Amino acid sequence: MLILLTNDDGIHAPGIEAMWRELVKLGEVVVVAPETVQSATGHGITIEQPLLTSKVTVAEGFTGIAVDGRPADCVKLAINQLLPRQPDLVVSGINAGANVGINVIYSGTVAAAIEAAFLGLPSIAVSLFLRNEVPTDFAGAAIYARQMIDQIQSQGLKGGQCINVNLPAIPTGGKPAGVRTARQCTRPWVDTYDKRVTPRGREYFWNSSVYALRETEEDTDVAALRDGYITVTPLQFDLTEHKEMAQWAGREWKVAADPTHAE
Amino acid sequence: MLILLTNDDGIHAPGIEAMWRELVKLGEVVVVAPETVQSATGHGITIEQPLLTSKVTVAEGFTGIAVDGRPADCVKLAINQLLPRQPDLVVSGINAGANVGINVIYSGTVAAAIEAAFLGLPSIAVSLFLRNEVPTDFAGAAIYARQMIDQIQSQGLKGGQCINVNLPAIPTGGKPAGVRTARQCTRPWVDTYDKRVTPRGREYFWNSSVYALRETEEDTDVAALRDGYITVTPLQFDLTEHKEMAQWAGREWKVAADPTHAE
Repeated sequence: MLILLTNDDGIHAPGIEAMWRELVKLGEVVVVAPETVQSATGHGITIEQPLLTSKVTVAEGFTGIAVDGRPADCVKLAINQLLPRQPDLVVSGINAGANVGINVIYSGTVAAAIEAAFLGLPSIAVSLFLRNEVPTDFAGAAIYARQMIDQIQSQGLKGGQCINVNLPAIPTGGKPAGVRTARQCTRPWVDTYDKRVTPRGREYFWNSSVYALRETEEDTDVAALRDGYITVTPLQFDLTEHKEMAQWAGREWKVAADPTHAE
Repeated sequence: MLILLTNDDGIHAPGIEAMWRELVKLGEVVVVAPETVQSATGHGITIEQPLLTSKVTVAEGFTGIAVDGRPADCVKLAINQLLPRQPDLVVSGINAGANVGINVIYSGTVAAAIEAAFLGLPSIAVSLFLRNEVPTDFAGAAIYARQMIDQIQSQGLKGGQCINVNLPAIPTGGKPAGVRTARQCTRPWVDTYDKRVTPRGREYFWNSSVYALRETEEDTDVAALRDGYITVTPLQFDLTEHKEMAQWAGREWKVAADPTHAE
């Protein structure tokens, strides 16, 4: 099994190395990941700039190709140019921070997995919930992640399918409450900004929003992760609101035929 | 009616100015848009850097606030900090280039509108299909856009709803074939990259993909725009693949309880 591994925190992030150390137990792993941190870059891609690449050795045995682009660029470029053959699975992560709820929309980690899915490959995004009161343990999280990936894969993940996995923050000696399949919560952030002024008098703003885990419905990924479960959410990439199609298709539209003279 | 106008091509782009000239016929318009070109940035947001703002006068009568961030940042910041009150409508565009098919996923124009939608506002993204053989006419396109926006708004666009409008490239003296409500085509780009080498020997790649309008199903936005129609696609932002929820929820998962000792 050939696995493409990428992320959005960059090839030097601890999460991708921990994931690599576990994934090599499942198959051959090729790492193609952003050269720099690409958090919250969403599904951006690079079309007007060149994508520089370099082979890097991050740690003993852990080598990969760094791309100075976005996570979705890494997937496109890996599949189109860098891999010896089509991968059997694309894994993105482990992200430093949960990608549940509306964060799924902002996430570069998830975007990489979705890109792989619409290119026809099976893909899994993996993220670790970070909490101040729990020491961050990517090595431990990666073991859970590998167990989940192994089972998702063996249970018949198909090309074009994308699974979003989030891992709870586990206190020392603790364990996940279990595994829960849950839908994405679509509530927005409650945004806050700090307004400041530069020494030269220009206004600027820092995003100081705190994503409130409590503000959710109980059947969502946000609630399940909050409650200590590993979350599993199948994702798709059709943004059409099919429920509203009939409503808009039934309208009569009046468009003036020659607009430059219609005024 | 208070309208927030943004885009992804930047506040100095001709498309947003043309849109502004028409939108002022519908209500009060406040422009908050990226300082620089943000094409294909998807739904990225800025959380680790400050967002600098400046008041700019782009043309006579056309002033706005430039934000050195992403399109979605502009919407967040405008609503949270810059506008005197909640807008009645958010318009994003006119984008220089179609946002149909899988490009909807990559589009900063669409991301701004979707951000507005999940913040509870009615929103419309507007993009103009550019074709080499047809002179680009943002002023003419904006007249069509304004007619569409006026009708979408008056037909009861609700908070949280997002409509993606694409305008065909219209030859001089021509007109749109009509208006068609169509779903998003979800086929991927057929990617191609030009591989090159820097003078110092480092490999780099230019994305040279051409998005093929012919590779689509006939009931999609791509086909309708190709055939000269103004396209209307209602969008949503729940990435859950609900059809697969039962499949994954029915699985039994085995997760070793103490992973650091399970090896």
